[in-house]
Amino acid sequence: MNGAESLVRTLVDSGVEVCFSNPGTSEMHFVAALDKVDGMRAVLALFEGVATGAADGYGRIAGKPAATLLHLGPGLANGLANLHNARRASTPIVNIVGDHATYHAQYDAPLTSDLVGFARPVSGWIHSSVSAGTVASDAARAVQAARNAPGQIATLVLPADTAWNDAEGAAPALPVLGPAPASSRAIGDVAKALRNGKRTAILIRDAGALTREGLESAGRIAAKSKARILCDTFTPKITRGAGVVALERIPYFAEQIVEFLKDVEQLVLVGAKPPVTFFAYPGKPSWCTPEGAQILYLSHPHEDGRGALAAVADAIGAPKDGATPMALKRPDIPTEAFNAYTVGQIIARFLPEGAIISDEAATSGAGAAMFTANAPWHDHMSLTGGAIGQGVPLAMGAAVAAPGRKVLALQGDGGGMYTLQALWTQAREKLDVTTIIFANRSYAILNIELARVGAGNPGPKTLSMLDLHNPELNWVSLANGMGVEASRATSNAEFAAQFESAMHARGPRLIEVML
Amino acid sequence: MNGAESLVRTLVDSGVEVCFSNPGTSEMHFVAALDKVDGMRAVLALFEGVATGAADGYGRIAGKPAATLLHLGPGLANGLANLHNARRASTPIVNIVGDHATYHAQYDAPLTSDLVGFARPVSGWIHSSVSAGTVASDAARAVQAARNAPGQIATLVLPADTAWNDAEGAAPALPVLGPAPASSRAIGDVAKALRNGKRTAILIRDAGALTREGLESAGRIAAKSKARILCDTFTPKITRGAGVVALERIPYFAEQIVEFLKDVEQLVLVGAKPPVTFFAYPGKPSWCTPEGAQILYLSHPHEDGRGALAAVADAIGAPKDGATPMALKRPDIPTEAFNAYTVGQIIARFLPEGAIISDEAATSGAGAAMFTANAPWHDHMSLTGGAIGQGVPLAMGAAVAAPGRKVLALQGDGGGMYTLQALWTQAREKLDVTTIIFANRSYAILNIELARVGAGNPGPKTLSMLDLHNPELNWVSLANGMGVEASRATSNAEFAAQFESAMHARGPRLIEVML
Repeated sequence: MNGAESLVRTLVDSGVEVCFSNPGTSEMHFVAALDKVDGMRAVLALFEGVATGAADGYGRIAGKPAATLLHLGPGLANGLANLHNARRASTPIVNIVGDHATYHAQYDAPLTSDLVGFARPVSGWIHSSVSAGTVASDAARAVQAARNAPGQIATLVLPADTAWNDAEGAAPALPVLGPAPASSRAIGDVAKALRNGKRTAILIRDAGALTREGLESAGRIAAKSKARILCDTFTPKITRGAGVVALERIPYFAEQIVEFLKDVEQLVLVGAKPPVTFFAYPGKPSWCTPEGAQILYLSHPHEDGRGALAAVADAIGAPKDGATPMALKRPDIPTEAFNAYTVGQIIARFLPEGAIISDEAATSGAGAAMFTANAPWHDHMSLTGGAIGQGVPLAMGAAVAAPGRKVLALQGDGGGMYTLQALWTQAREKLDVTTIIFANRSYAILNIELARVGAGNPGPKTLSMLDLHNPELNWVSLANGMGVEASRATSNAEFAAQFESAMHARGPRLIEVML
Repeated sequence: MNGAESLVRTLVDSGVEVCFSNPGTSEMHFVAALDKVDGMRAVLALFEGVATGAADGYGRIAGKPAATLLHLGPGLANGLANLHNARRASTPIVNIVGDHATYHAQYDAPLTSDLVGFARPVSGWIHSSVSAGTVASDAARAVQAARNAPGQIATLVLPADTAWNDAEGAAPALPVLGPAPASSRAIGDVAKALRNGKRTAILIRDAGALTREGLESAGRIAAKSKARILCDTFTPKITRGAGVVALERIPYFAEQIVEFLKDVEQLVLVGAKPPVTFFAYPGKPSWCTPEGAQILYLSHPHEDGRGALAAVADAIGAPKDGATPMALKRPDIPTEAFNAYTVGQIIARFLPEGAIISDEAATSGAGAAMFTANAPWHDHMSLTGGAIGQGVPLAMGAAVAAPGRKVLALQGDGGGMYTLQALWTQAREKLDVTTIIFANRSYAILNIELARVGAGNPGPKTLSMLDLHNPELNWVSLANGMGVEASRATSNAEFAAQFESAMHARGPRLIEVML
């Protein structure tokens, strides 16, 4: 067995079943090993940012890592932006990067680069194997590092000769550290604070707590104590909809956040950080916790936030059935003019139970967020690191992780153009993803931000940098060019017909919503 | 004047006239400044890899830097692969990256990352401004650093508050160090070596030497001394065609290089490194200079290779008119079956004088390379760093630099999918680029490499990782979706008609060659 086969066997034995790949010459032995080992699904991407975004979506839904297979420093570089988003989501990913053979690096051939330098800003764990004999144990360590709570990116750099030289065999899976219990002192402090009469908000980030069960505990606490339950503007994954306790999402803009939090006297953090603005603005605050408010950490990111919430609910004597989950409400097909809100109503009308939403709709997403709160239960994933181009690959990876569930990508046209190649893989793998492109022909958020940053009256050059009208994109052509069935909707009736049909069919579909 | 305006004024005063942009909130003041200052053309890209690849193409043709404008760490990250290629080409680029306001970085907001860490592997010069008052002088230093011979990437990181706070004004342009003269000792040594009767090859990399004038000197030397004149497999820019002295291009594969160089007893390097293989292969050499051959450095990359070649030609008494340039030969339209070679013949038949070719055709490029040697003179740019996805953006940047010249992108379909968004900017800016997509539906080079690396008999999973048939890409749909006129060619006659028409029209066109 060579090093490459020892790698693939070890990954499979450690529970890694999917590899999102864009290989090159230095990875050919790893690619060849895919046929020698059962149990590894290889999914080809036409661009590395698609592979890494898909690995993020897979990890968020599967709760365990996929591997990537990338080609040297530049291949890794193309995947970095979505790895940045994955890092912000604490998604477990085993990032495998082929490198030049150990003895070849000295010659500074054209593809030579500071590969580890590229990897460092996104990786919680990095290792470069130096011989075929250690590849298997290095891979086992990489999986362990990726999976240890709360999850992180482990980058394993494999020089080509560590693939083709002889290895001893696979390495056994290593134990994984799950979430540690939150400290009983923190639980007691929070339980006590909830009875002191101060206005309290509980901000939940923890992936285990943003589930039906975790939110149930939060809902019990809220009912008993009148505390507000909050989540960040952008969360890796949250369960929402009918039968699930809802929480308040912190708004995006600085002055909205300040207004939203202004009455808070105590802020309880569950795997979260104190809220700050996304960007800085002249004369506006970055730090959004009200002055004088006390901050209590109930659990840290590596701790069990769900268990901590349940313990607090019990400690304050909240009834087991005290939480109030959301009711099911299916909106009618709206009669107002076609816009992002009517689109949201129609999505909520037809969304199937157990759907997964990948939301990078930016300015166009508010309608869907509002109306799907009463749709059947679903998981919602948002853009965690601000690096646009996440949405379509994320949906693709989620669909690989959950073949029985309908995946919906809500995508702005500006961000969609970053990684549109993901549509090709959706067609290739016949993934059950419906992509809604909100075609406002602009970086709409930037038109808002331009005014907010106080940059004065914009001139024509300035405005042209935010405008995507010239030329008009045609997403139906783009999707068809990659083998995905697509249509355009210019009215509520058209969108309703197309969306309903997509929800009842399987396989990739794209609807371009003409706003 | 704020820092942003001081930046743009300084760039213009330092000779930077074009900015390839994909801005975000943290760059809004820089964008707004574009309207306050004359002389800066802002070109919007829908993906940062397009912006950086275009800046590379611009720099190779204009011989001076364009700026980029990128959005924080992830925006930079998306541009890194083409910056890697630009680094390998020694292209001057002023890479401007907006960052969070200085006081905002401490809050670790979602878009916060190790921006300088991302920049380091590709940048010869990096600086983060700390106040609006230094932005102008920092920008002048960045331009100077980018332009100093032989050219490099200078990355200037600008926190948002350095844009919106008050600045004093523009900074004056700084002096630029052109190529240093090669040492007279090196010139003398090479002249002497050329008369010692040993078999000599002169390997030229220097951008100034791979021009009509530099090659003329090399041709004089060759005629007088019988030395061979070589260039690397992948050169940033070389002038070729009728009226220009031709040289031999080092082949790609290890065993071909060894065969190609086996008789060389002396290797003279003009801004070049000793030839090595692109990748390592089991049991094959990486180092390709024959054992015992002497290596002489005539000039280093920061030195004047063109001047050095002229001095050597004079020193050995080569007649001024001793060089033999290529003759003009326009091939007939071929009658053989349609393939990459007949495409090459047709390209050579209709290529206009002074064209610029951006070549990322990989396995499909040999035909064009062969037949255009006798086409009218043109500049040829190749993939310098091996990071695919360079070709279409490079052509776009070249067209911005040289509005009067026809630009031709020869592009494999695999690499073309990396940065296809460049077509949109070609349409927006009405750039005179004809893109030829060689649609072989595969990473064809990898099928060759798979056999060469000795990875055994490939199985179906392995082969599927190199195959782009499922689903079929349709480049006509893709191009139309971005506003570019496109057609498919399935025969010599169809291609000849489409290509001739494109050569006689202006503006972007795409031809999908069905191989």
